[in-house]
Amino acid sequence: MSARLLDGQALAVRLQQEITPQVAQFTARYGRPPGLAIVLVGQNPASEVYVRNKLKAGSGVGFRADLERLPEAASLGDVLALVERLNRSEAHDGILVQAPLPKGLGGDAAARVFDAIAPEKDVDGFTPTNVGLMVQGRPALVACTPSGIIELLVREGIQIAGRRACVVGRSDIVGKPMALLLLQRDATVTVCHSKTPDLPGVCREADILVAAVGRAGLMTRSFVKPGATVIDVGMNRVTDAAVARALFPAGHPRLARFQERGSLLVGDVHPDVADVAGALTPVPGGVGPLTVTMLMMNTLRAARARAEGART
Amino acid sequence: MSARLLDGQALAVRLQQEITPQVAQFTARYGRPPGLAIVLVGQNPASEVYVRNKLKAGSGVGFRADLERLPEAASLGDVLALVERLNRSEAHDGILVQAPLPKGLGGDAAARVFDAIAPEKDVDGFTPTNVGLMVQGRPALVACTPSGIIELLVREGIQIAGRRACVVGRSDIVGKPMALLLLQRDATVTVCHSKTPDLPGVCREADILVAAVGRAGLMTRSFVKPGATVIDVGMNRVTDAAVARALFPAGHPRLARFQERGSLLVGDVHPDVADVAGALTPVPGGVGPLTVTMLMMNTLRAARARAEGART
Repeated sequence: MSARLLDGQALAVRLQQEITPQVAQFTARYGRPPGLAIVLVGQNPASEVYVRNKLKAGSGVGFRADLERLPEAASLGDVLALVERLNRSEAHDGILVQAPLPKGLGGDAAARVFDAIAPEKDVDGFTPTNVGLMVQGRPALVACTPSGIIELLVREGIQIAGRRACVVGRSDIVGKPMALLLLQRDATVTVCHSKTPDLPGVCREADILVAAVGRAGLMTRSFVKPGATVIDVGMNRVTDAAVARALFPAGHPRLARFQERGSLLVGDVHPDVADVAGALTPVPGGVGPLTVTMLMMNTLRAARARAEGART
Repeated sequence: MSARLLDGQALAVRLQQEITPQVAQFTARYGRPPGLAIVLVGQNPASEVYVRNKLKAGSGVGFRADLERLPEAASLGDVLALVERLNRSEAHDGILVQAPLPKGLGGDAAARVFDAIAPEKDVDGFTPTNVGLMVQGRPALVACTPSGIIELLVREGIQIAGRRACVVGRSDIVGKPMALLLLQRDATVTVCHSKTPDLPGVCREADILVAAVGRAGLMTRSFVKPGATVIDVGMNRVTDAAVARALFPAGHPRLARFQERGSLLVGDVHPDVADVAGALTPVPGGVGPLTVTMLMMNTLRAARARAEGART
């Protein structure tokens, strides 16, 4: 174990401490706190946890943080009407619709609902307008996970400009915006995916390797150039004992915990990578907490833009 | 010289032959031809040539192709008012504002004018909305040069999926959309730029190399993996005899022509690359003619979307 651990949890706490007085300043200046509305449709245990964390973080920095629930049986029209109401709401600067939406809403419901969010309140950065502005390097609300990773790299003093970066995974939420943000900061960026031949070889070119594939422990030592910075975006729940044993040696405390609880949360990066990498984000406690914090930063940013726009 | 020449001019002619009957069909069905409006502000000899070519290509396939001129002294308000009028025009499906705009309009004029174009008429694919939709892999009007290159690769039977592609240059108009389109077709894509260390080494990894840097003959043999497909987006006017002599050997017909005329149009790729590459686009006659053709395809596409939308 030689890699420096990049403590996302600690940075998240520090960032929230930085944001809190700025929120108080906003509230004093405009006579209202920044407002975040989270739309939750139906029942999903994982979504309940995520939403609770986001609301708690929002209240924690001094936002008005409202949960807007709709029942599982809500129609697409109901969801769109709620988004429209929040678009018009004076009190709300940020709107987040928690994914996934109930399957009953139909296959294109997510696209239709996310597209309906006013770009200036789109604190998840999912609307085509915000994505396009981000690509063009213009002011935009940018997806929280990749912008949190940039914040982490910058605060940890890891050089991006002139380095080779490799992003594994090309989702709209992580991989593609991650690649574009690294490019904007002058990295030479390669995007890999399931169709990449010799994935380990391509990954070994990278000084900064971002794993966002959603497969427990896929990225082993052979994927990592010695000394590289490795960012693990994966959040995979392992319930198979054989998988857990392939990740942790006998007697490892996390394996013991797996045996107690029957499940374990691990990233896309195999723990052995710590012997090769120069720096590494842990799972949990790496990228995850930063995602929620960037949501707070986006909401404050959206609030300022709205309030300043309204004054002029 | 071993590389197969990828004849963009011939493909452009073929594509225009394919479009022409589709345009006639549209006109018969909807009682009007697809309409393209080109806005030209001020006097710029190069712009005059480009605009003439686009109008000619438009009329050639059967479009209504209108030139909308504004004087050099036009205000930003004048330009925006013209764009607004064209946004509302029933007769126009595509709007193209020829760049560059006169400097007197101010530094952010281009962004403000391009942003004012209705996304559904934005046949250059420059608005944030179209860029964002393209990134998300959704139906969009996509920038003409990169979509023309994809068309060329596909028609020439050059495999993209599973290959390594390298795009040199990261402009909003070529480099970034090119990278995203190649990624969408399952290439493993690297984007290089002026801050890339060991540019030749990175380029040599590529099975498909796209040069879009705007520097005459920069990409020499040492940048190219033997057998790679090389796409040359550069259009550089050489007026320096020393530069011309570095590109072509004594007695080469193009050098003779340079000596006659005092200038020469060359790409970013050194002619010697033809000895190493498997396939290569010439300059002129490669990517250039395809850009104009894709503008025609985008206009037809925009016309169909508008006409079908209007019917429902």
